[in-house]
Amino acid sequence: MARINDNFLKLKAGYLFPEIGRRVGAYADANPDKAASLIKCGIGDVTEPLPAAVREAIHTAVDELGNRDTFRGYGPEQGYDFLREAIVENCYADLNISANDIFISDGSKCDTGNILDIFGKGNKIAVTDPVYPVYVDTNVMIGNTGEADEEGRYEGLVYLPCTAENDFVPAIPDEKVDIIYLCYPNNPSGASATREQLTAWVTYAKENDAIILYDAAYEAFIQDDDVPRSIYEIEGAHECALEFRSFSKNGGFTGIRCAYITIPETVTGVSATGERISIKQLWARRTSTKFNGASYPIQRGAEAIFSDAGKAQVVALVDHYMGNAKLLREACTEIGLKVFGGENAPYVWVACPEGLTSWDMFDKMLTEANVVITPGSGFGAAGEGYFRISAFNSRENVKEVCKRLKAYL
Amino acid sequence: MARINDNFLKLKAGYLFPEIGRRVGAYADANPDKAASLIKCGIGDVTEPLPAAVREAIHTAVDELGNRDTFRGYGPEQGYDFLREAIVENCYADLNISANDIFISDGSKCDTGNILDIFGKGNKIAVTDPVYPVYVDTNVMIGNTGEADEEGRYEGLVYLPCTAENDFVPAIPDEKVDIIYLCYPNNPSGASATREQLTAWVTYAKENDAIILYDAAYEAFIQDDDVPRSIYEIEGAHECALEFRSFSKNGGFTGIRCAYITIPETVTGVSATGERISIKQLWARRTSTKFNGASYPIQRGAEAIFSDAGKAQVVALVDHYMGNAKLLREACTEIGLKVFGGENAPYVWVACPEGLTSWDMFDKMLTEANVVITPGSGFGAAGEGYFRISAFNSRENVKEVCKRLKAYL
Repeated sequence: MARINDNFLKLKAGYLFPEIGRRVGAYADANPDKAASLIKCGIGDVTEPLPAAVREAIHTAVDELGNRDTFRGYGPEQGYDFLREAIVENCYADLNISANDIFISDGSKCDTGNILDIFGKGNKIAVTDPVYPVYVDTNVMIGNTGEADEEGRYEGLVYLPCTAENDFVPAIPDEKVDIIYLCYPNNPSGASATREQLTAWVTYAKENDAIILYDAAYEAFIQDDDVPRSIYEIEGAHECALEFRSFSKNGGFTGIRCAYITIPETVTGVSATGERISIKQLWARRTSTKFNGASYPIQRGAEAIFSDAGKAQVVALVDHYMGNAKLLREACTEIGLKVFGGENAPYVWVACPEGLTSWDMFDKMLTEANVVITPGSGFGAAGEGYFRISAFNSRENVKEVCKRLKAYL
Repeated sequence: MARINDNFLKLKAGYLFPEIGRRVGAYADANPDKAASLIKCGIGDVTEPLPAAVREAIHTAVDELGNRDTFRGYGPEQGYDFLREAIVENCYADLNISANDIFISDGSKCDTGNILDIFGKGNKIAVTDPVYPVYVDTNVMIGNTGEADEEGRYEGLVYLPCTAENDFVPAIPDEKVDIIYLCYPNNPSGASATREQLTAWVTYAKENDAIILYDAAYEAFIQDDDVPRSIYEIEGAHECALEFRSFSKNGGFTGIRCAYITIPETVTGVSATGERISIKQLWARRTSTKFNGASYPIQRGAEAIFSDAGKAQVVALVDHYMGNAKLLREACTEIGLKVFGGENAPYVWVACPEGLTSWDMFDKMLTEANVVITPGSGFGAAGEGYFRISAFNSRENVKEVCKRLKAYL
């Protein structure tokens, strides 16, 4: 008989966003008159048109495929050099990263989940709390945890609390861990990490022979020149950190799919016999065996992000979303809520009014204000008492949300 | 310290096609004058333009994304209903498969590798020999095997020999296995499986509570009306089989990426406590946690495969490649080689001339005929003594290959 992976049965409830989808669906079904004016600030999904430079590049690439002489079939599994080189030139200038350190994929959700394929059993794994649920659930699924407790915390994982007291950047732990997930600018809290904070983490990782999985999906939203955009701005990170980046949020690629992982050759793990093994070589093997490259026209679209026109269009998109974040911050502050994030990230993280849990607040916002937010507890136990408002929306919708916040809270 | 997945260190040499790439690269570097006339019949990659209907659909979808009102961000992880429904209507009419049994992905290579995520340890896994290397390597990587022996066979896997004697469809094994990979029309042998053969396998799977992973990536090339196009044409398969299909080979999607897995609700596996668990529900959870959906414009392109224009264009592509296969079969036969496959599949499987191993034949074809083929032993020990010629090429190239075969062999 075929045995299933029993680790899947440890997973608590649905993944957060499907659960939100179910509640919103039930509400909309019961209140068909309100469905049209429902505003979704829940899932962190872009709303504005795909940049013109990207669309043009995809059109051109699709036309190429219509001609035998310029047709391309399977591309290199790790991505085309034209894109890998554009990334190095535009995102890693002077950071000692080369094009063959870059692995192009169809999304950071896949990448942050799949990366576990190359790590062994017995690693002590640390995640922040609150956290992007994919990091946790993929560790559960692959067998790196025990069962969940009543608060939803899985045995075996080390949870690093991120609170208002530590500005949502976790303190260096007393214990030794082997793999640490960090995401800055942060989802869900919208916090950013300073150079000093990241330096402390890189120092810790090097001292403990640990690897940092650094998720920089929201890098484009950094407004403050002092905030590092890449972990590789930190000395020593080339020996201990992988970086995950995406075109989803800067270029509006959530529907068309393109992202990448950066892995310097000098990051190593340890085999059972104590041999040091290049993480990049393992990932290259994983990629050539289990992946067939990201879609060619989409890779051309991603390359166009780095053209002069593309850059200007991305700046306009980022300005739009960050303008939304500013309005949301101001509205929440005005009605006396405690507000975090939203300054270097497209998420505003808000303390719930006294006496309301995160899901209370979700239901209140849904049924009274007709607005979908994300309950903080969906991101982990330490997210209880907070909710996240996504700034990914039209200006008109954001203004309306601000009005409703003031009316209903 | 971060421990790596030691199973990766069991993998023998490179994945077949990168190894071929390395040999071809070295040859081309050493013989720059011959590079221009080198003909590649190695990797099974399409060569003809992407159908016009597909290109038009992608163009339209990309334009939609340029307009705020029709913009789409994250799609459903399991794929858009428009595509799932088109698949059911066109590929599974009267086969009792519903749209929500279909999971759209970015490729069958990913799917056949990733499917192992949902199965547990301790399953006895059977693969054919020769075999598409991805099935084997992904089992090695996830820890389902021991070390490889000198012939490249991994301890713990059950190898089912496919030889001229059994028409390259494996005999039902005496022992009990839990998971069986079958691929028909077959890569690499080009064989197809009859209704009786598949019925025997479904019967075996049901009797042994096993699951068949049925790879039907080459279904479109079936010319013979008696050959089943789907495992679900076989009674009982809905209780024991998953089917992998792809747009790569029929629609020429190798560069743009789209495929799917079909999983009827009635296929179940067993948990550690003996509970029967729906494989579809496990895959749904895996998909929502580790995947963000295939690219929207590409899904629209796949949908267009099923339009009237798209269907006609696919027929023309299939006719073109199968015409190539016929010429290759004839040329090999004419020079006295023993030829298999190529009648319901785009691969011609040829016995090497007496005294030559598969890699000898590869090197001979490369250095003498300036043609790249695939050595049979790259697909497994039982592939030794054979080579594969891919029919994916222009007619002009195929004619030239036929000429060179006659000249050099």
